[in-house]
Amino acid sequence: MVLLISICSLSLTAQNSDSAIIRGFFNQALSSDFAYNQLEYLCHQIGGRICCTPEAAAAVEWSKQLLQSLDADTVYLQPCKVRCWKRGEQEQAMVNSARLGTFTPEICALGGSVGTGKEGIRAEVIEVHSMDEMKTLGKAAIKGRIVFFNRPAEPTFINTFPAYGTAVDQRVFGAAEAAKYGAIGVIVRSITLANDNNPHTGIMHYGPDSDSIPAVAIGTANADKLSNWLKSDPKLQLYIRTTCYENPEGVSYNVIAEKYGTVHPEKIICFGGHIDAWDNGGEGAHDDGVGVMHTIEAFRLFLESGVKPQNTLRVIVFMDEEVDQQGGKAYAASVKAKGEQIIAAIESDEGGFTPTGFAVDAGDSVNQQFEKWRPLFSEYGLYEIFHGYSGVDIHPLKEQGIPLMAIMTDSQRYFDYQHSPSDKFENVNRREMQLGSASIAMLIYLIDKYGWRP
Amino acid sequence: MVLLISICSLSLTAQNSDSAIIRGFFNQALSSDFAYNQLEYLCHQIGGRICCTPEAAAAVEWSKQLLQSLDADTVYLQPCKVRCWKRGEQEQAMVNSARLGTFTPEICALGGSVGTGKEGIRAEVIEVHSMDEMKTLGKAAIKGRIVFFNRPAEPTFINTFPAYGTAVDQRVFGAAEAAKYGAIGVIVRSITLANDNNPHTGIMHYGPDSDSIPAVAIGTANADKLSNWLKSDPKLQLYIRTTCYENPEGVSYNVIAEKYGTVHPEKIICFGGHIDAWDNGGEGAHDDGVGVMHTIEAFRLFLESGVKPQNTLRVIVFMDEEVDQQGGKAYAASVKAKGEQIIAAIESDEGGFTPTGFAVDAGDSVNQQFEKWRPLFSEYGLYEIFHGYSGVDIHPLKEQGIPLMAIMTDSQRYFDYQHSPSDKFENVNRREMQLGSASIAMLIYLIDKYGWRP
Repeated sequence: MVLLISICSLSLTAQNSDSAIIRGFFNQALSSDFAYNQLEYLCHQIGGRICCTPEAAAAVEWSKQLLQSLDADTVYLQPCKVRCWKRGEQEQAMVNSARLGTFTPEICALGGSVGTGKEGIRAEVIEVHSMDEMKTLGKAAIKGRIVFFNRPAEPTFINTFPAYGTAVDQRVFGAAEAAKYGAIGVIVRSITLANDNNPHTGIMHYGPDSDSIPAVAIGTANADKLSNWLKSDPKLQLYIRTTCYENPEGVSYNVIAEKYGTVHPEKIICFGGHIDAWDNGGEGAHDDGVGVMHTIEAFRLFLESGVKPQNTLRVIVFMDEEVDQQGGKAYAASVKAKGEQIIAAIESDEGGFTPTGFAVDAGDSVNQQFEKWRPLFSEYGLYEIFHGYSGVDIHPLKEQGIPLMAIMTDSQRYFDYQHSPSDKFENVNRREMQLGSASIAMLIYLIDKYGWRP
Repeated sequence: MVLLISICSLSLTAQNSDSAIIRGFFNQALSSDFAYNQLEYLCHQIGGRICCTPEAAAAVEWSKQLLQSLDADTVYLQPCKVRCWKRGEQEQAMVNSARLGTFTPEICALGGSVGTGKEGIRAEVIEVHSMDEMKTLGKAAIKGRIVFFNRPAEPTFINTFPAYGTAVDQRVFGAAEAAKYGAIGVIVRSITLANDNNPHTGIMHYGPDSDSIPAVAIGTANADKLSNWLKSDPKLQLYIRTTCYENPEGVSYNVIAEKYGTVHPEKIICFGGHIDAWDNGGEGAHDDGVGVMHTIEAFRLFLESGVKPQNTLRVIVFMDEEVDQQGGKAYAASVKAKGEQIIAAIESDEGGFTPTGFAVDAGDSVNQQFEKWRPLFSEYGLYEIFHGYSGVDIHPLKEQGIPLMAIMTDSQRYFDYQHSPSDKFENVNRREMQLGSASIAMLIYLIDKYGWRP
């Protein structure tokens, strides 16, 4: 590209007070390293931090100290129970074929899986692409074997979240279903549209009426290789060794900070991301260190702008989104028990990519305000308003009729990193992340000033 | 993020024939590795390829063979003259301060610069932030010194192209201006919003009435360090050694392929990117290997869709965008000399990021069609229509009244890589690039079918 091109510049002269204040959020966000440096600390000094680990405890303490360093009126912990699933030793796998030789794909245990025992398991492999195919094959084909779920996520969706939705059943329910037919383990193609050898973990669940068999993930390139080897040698043997186990339930915390409203302190706008992150070599950067920093930074941008919030602003660092969503559940239970008035709950859990708009799960008066705000959003590239599911941690608030919403970001790269060893700080771009922080500050500002009345 | 979320899915059921054909372009693009694998070859096997190098010659031959492998009616070369500026040996720099010690920042010569001679140059440094500041300082402060242009690109623009525009004068005109005050060289802060030590090259020009003095770039983090050292020790010395030189002009080529129109073969829709790329350690991935592949892939997607173009489709692999734009000029001259009817010229030179829309530099009838097509564009996240400059290689066609347009992409990361050693294949995401290829195929399809009549 060449010189002096000027595309889509935005006027720095604000049209009115709202525009000027919103422009200020973006100016501050794009000029500051604060949030990005904090994310680097979380990723590099603490790293992966699934609930009930020392890293998760450190992340709670770090979040508390970070929030205490801001101009909040109160910072407190909100306890929640957490499952104590432990990954154990580095997982191992080996494929042995009399005809083709040996290869050793990287694998990782799925979250919540039982281990294989120290001896590991070794068996023939049967590849399937759906639960229906497994049913058709039946016990005769499956009993005593390892089931290889190899249906790729559908690549032709433009947004990758529904693409993820086309394959995630294999990870969550594959083991429970395969066990019904006598499988001794499952190996699941990672749910990503990238072509590499990173195994992606994520939660899985056993059924009430099925045996608990070990479940692991394999990268997409190795899944293709395994599939090719199976075509040449259906009798090849797969060895898997995982030592994951479950300890008794523990206690952890959501971390919450508030700035009291100057007009309606009893009315609350809450916003947050989750601090827990998978433990298989990544740093929980996009999922969801960014969401934590998006919302803490939005809080900071708001406070530093000098605008006095009319309503109480509450930032929540949620614990345990990945395993059992106990942080989100504890928060919703607390809101209900205290009879709190939550005007809006905003979540960030789509990664630190360029923001594209907002998801809104609310009623007509909320939707009408979002339509009214479209021109303000569009100035910052936020063209999309999606009506529907807005996030895991705030979802338990839905039954109380609270308007739920989320920042949406460009989804193309999200599943390249999610739950994988590549979810690292270096894969987060400062500007892309900070556009999200400012977008959330903008939304909080508009809700605080105008609420849901037309 | 958790299970089974479904955001912004697009119906796979096409509403009508246009939708179905366009959906087909995207389905093909997102399911195929072809263009991405070709880009990998260009980047890894050929690499940096500034005009008048063996790499540029190899890239021309590669482009020709690639186009010949497709279902084109003709593939031919179009000669253009090219400057033969040579970078010479790896550049060296050293900062020496009696007080602070020594550091050796990575530097690179700016394109078109003279060399320092084999002995290098050593002098005190004077930091400036604008041409005006240099004027105010005057000859007394500048004569015999190296001028350090250290004005950062403005970070608060949302789109990074105008941000680039706020700083690029230093690179292009800095040496010419500094020479007027007796400077013996210039060192220029790289024009990027990233904070790292990659020096970014790019073309510079000497004035007709000034001496030619050596010009180099320094990464932003090292620029900050040099600035800090200067505050402590204004007398520090900077050593620079570059051995760049100029050979006599050479000949190179645009590579062109055509599929003849079935109804109006005399009317042409042309589209292209540039094959030349800077030679300072990068691979010309985003700038502009992607543009070449975007447009070749759009040609391939169109041909493979089975749609017969009414007008002639012409893909152009432009030579020499970076140095003297001789490919674009030769192409425009040829169009004029032959009296060709070009319905539209489309350029891709903003990198392989998620596409955001189109730039359009044309009259009312064209603009009206773009407005009409907005709903089709929006389905694929292409919300922006920018009216203005649409690209360097097609710009010489403007005086012939030809409608010019370009694919626009998310700009946040573009200048992290542009003209730098980090402009590598690994920094291009397959899906983001392929969304651009399909977007261009869509635009070509609509222009071919509907033209500019309402």
